Amino acid sequence: MSSTLSVSMPAVNNTDRSAIAPLQVPDRLLLGPGPSNADPTVVAAMNHQPIGHLDPAYLQMMDEVQTLLRYAWQTRNPMTFPIAGTGSAAMEATLANTVEPGDKVLVGVKGYFGHRLVDMASRYQADVSTLHKPWGEVFSLSELRQGLETHRPQILALVHAETSTGVCQPLEGVGELCREFDCLLLVDTVTSLGGVPIFLDEWGVDLAYSCSQKGLSCPPGISPFTLSSRAVEKLQQRAAKVPNWYLDATLLAKYWGRDRTYHHTAPVNLTFALREALRLLAEEGLEARWQRHQQTAQKLWTGLADLGLTCHVDAAYRLPTLTTVRVPDGVEAKAVIRQLLTEYNLEIGGGLGELAGKVWRIGLMGHNSQPEKVETLLHALKQVLAV
Amino acid sequence: MSSTLSVSMPAVNNTDRSAIAPLQVPDRLLLGPGPSNADPTVVAAMNHQPIGHLDPAYLQMMDEVQTLLRYAWQTRNPMTFPIAGTGSAAMEATLANTVEPGDKVLVGVKGYFGHRLVDMASRYQADVSTLHKPWGEVFSLSELRQGLETHRPQILALVHAETSTGVCQPLEGVGELCREFDCLLLVDTVTSLGGVPIFLDEWGVDLAYSCSQKGLSCPPGISPFTLSSRAVEKLQQRAAKVPNWYLDATLLAKYWGRDRTYHHTAPVNLTFALREALRLLAEEGLEARWQRHQQTAQKLWTGLADLGLTCHVDAAYRLPTLTTVRVPDGVEAKAVIRQLLTEYNLEIGGGLGELAGKVWRIGLMGHNSQPEKVETLLHALKQVLAV
Repeated sequence: MSSTLSVSMPAVNNTDRSAIAPLQVPDRLLLGPGPSNADPTVVAAMNHQPIGHLDPAYLQMMDEVQTLLRYAWQTRNPMTFPIAGTGSAAMEATLANTVEPGDKVLVGVKGYFGHRLVDMASRYQADVSTLHKPWGEVFSLSELRQGLETHRPQILALVHAETSTGVCQPLEGVGELCREFDCLLLVDTVTSLGGVPIFLDEWGVDLAYSCSQKGLSCPPGISPFTLSSRAVEKLQQRAAKVPNWYLDATLLAKYWGRDRTYHHTAPVNLTFALREALRLLAEEGLEARWQRHQQTAQKLWTGLADLGLTCHVDAAYRLPTLTTVRVPDGVEAKAVIRQLLTEYNLEIGGGLGELAGKVWRIGLMGHNSQPEKVETLLHALKQVLAV
Repeated sequence: MSSTLSVSMPAVNNTDRSAIAPLQVPDRLLLGPGPSNADPTVVAAMNHQPIGHLDPAYLQMMDEVQTLLRYAWQTRNPMTFPIAGTGSAAMEATLANTVEPGDKVLVGVKGYFGHRLVDMASRYQADVSTLHKPWGEVFSLSELRQGLETHRPQILALVHAETSTGVCQPLEGVGELCREFDCLLLVDTVTSLGGVPIFLDEWGVDLAYSCSQKGLSCPPGISPFTLSSRAVEKLQQRAAKVPNWYLDATLLAKYWGRDRTYHHTAPVNLTFALREALRLLAEEGLEARWQRHQQTAQKLWTGLADLGLTCHVDAAYRLPTLTTVRVPDGVEAKAVIRQLLTEYNLEIGGGLGELAGKVWRIGLMGHNSQPEKVETLLHALKQVLAV
């Protein structure tokens, strides 16, 4: 030990120096609400040494990711990039950047993630109002109109694909409604991006966020975020700085834009993965991708009916990416989940909130949206339920 | 296309559907301020399919990561876990959780990251005061005592290893001082953890954060965070919720603790990597690790002197992990950086802020702290500088 180090250095405490085995990761088929399995090509993309977050090669990847995210979301928003965190960070980024204290935010709550939006918006001192629907239903345009008339919010927040219920909220016409009431439209696309038709610009969506580990088939940890020019205008007119440094889009835009000003050290290996995931999406094409998800889900729904199981959501609003299945009377939901995991290496999800114990959640997203995966699941379910 | 999908669906816009080539990552030797190269074993650990963030196998990894982080930091703090974001997110987490509006925060500013602490603390409505030192110097105990006497803050924030200057701030005695003034001690260990002696408990540090991509030799995107019982007490006594949902340690603790309550979808592949990085650290042992960093740095310093180059920081306070080297008169700093990258695939960093254009920043961290890497760098520098 050199002299500089040894001067007055305390003894190292080895209590927590536990000798653990080299990493062993079980091989699971992830058919729950997420994470889903990543495309093998995407997993392989992470298997590189990192490069610098200002390396010219990395800057080019950033541009590619931005372009392909715009394609995936069907938006031309310049301010479109991933946040260096999981989906909830991108969710918070939309609110942190655009909510000013006292702003009225109206949240359509029809599941767990609606409640989360309420909690987050309140932390940014929004004056939050809510519209409610039972978990498993959607809002009609007239209900939304009435909500806007009553509450006159600056932001209307809706969850496109409610991961807790398996419901797809129709968005056609909501953007026009929001413009009529001079209100921004914020949409959660966590369980829809890459699996369900989305047309952000066509639908007039002003703020959106998503995740990497569902329809995009990438590991979690990096999360798409976008603001329309109307949302950017609200951001620029803020009286005070964004009260969240890490998610401040004015700083992030300087790194993602031409300035390339250092903000944070980017999660470069996750960017490698996301770029690859988006490349595969562009290669397949959105129409083919959406059709695949719809067909795979249809196969699941038919198979579940054959087993005597009932879907919780009306077929008209059922997400192809995430299906909630009612737990039959007398069956313990958690025991089935546990048995599928331990005996079949197969993960499905349980119900959240109002639906805890009442449904299972089955995800068929991205790379996992394949007929063979449905067959594997149905076979396992049939055995475990002994039907 | 099924009927549900085709109803009133707009045409897909293919403008941004660019066909990009499969991923190609240049092979760089990363000897800048970070990211550093990851240990090859750690990179390989990411090369697995994700598993669920509530999978029993994942929960066990979480426990292992917590234990080994405590060893790495030499703390027994129960609230010790990584944040699902890069180092700046963990930095913000310390302030977001403990600062209440109007709290006095005193920041010792002697480089770029001190300024960042000021900016972040202000966003949480702290009443921020600063102490200043020229970039490249450290605070003495008596200067800190005087600062505490003058400002009487609730939190004193110091950067242990200033990545912008290469200075190591001595911390012996600062914790006692803070207790005398009934103040919490917040310390940035981004460029010290895993490379420089740290004894959080012995030194009385109450809040600390770090990153994965420097001394720990893991890719970036996941960041150690810890709060002492004194800091947790301040968190628990908050009048209002933490004004940041993603970084709210009361929610995070329910996921990392016994409840295992879902908060966010964890960046599971980065956890695989961090677990492996910490396993390797425990295998090597802190004393050996610190000694290796000191010896490798010593070799660099000697070699730089042989090339006629001068270190910016006094040897007594020089970080072994990050060295600032003065750019000789008549040499354009950026051109050298560019040439090293393009001709030698070797990344070093430029100066930030006050030191922009005046220094280069050379990192020898974790896996990169090896004599051969020093030789590679010195050889390249000699050629590029033609000395």
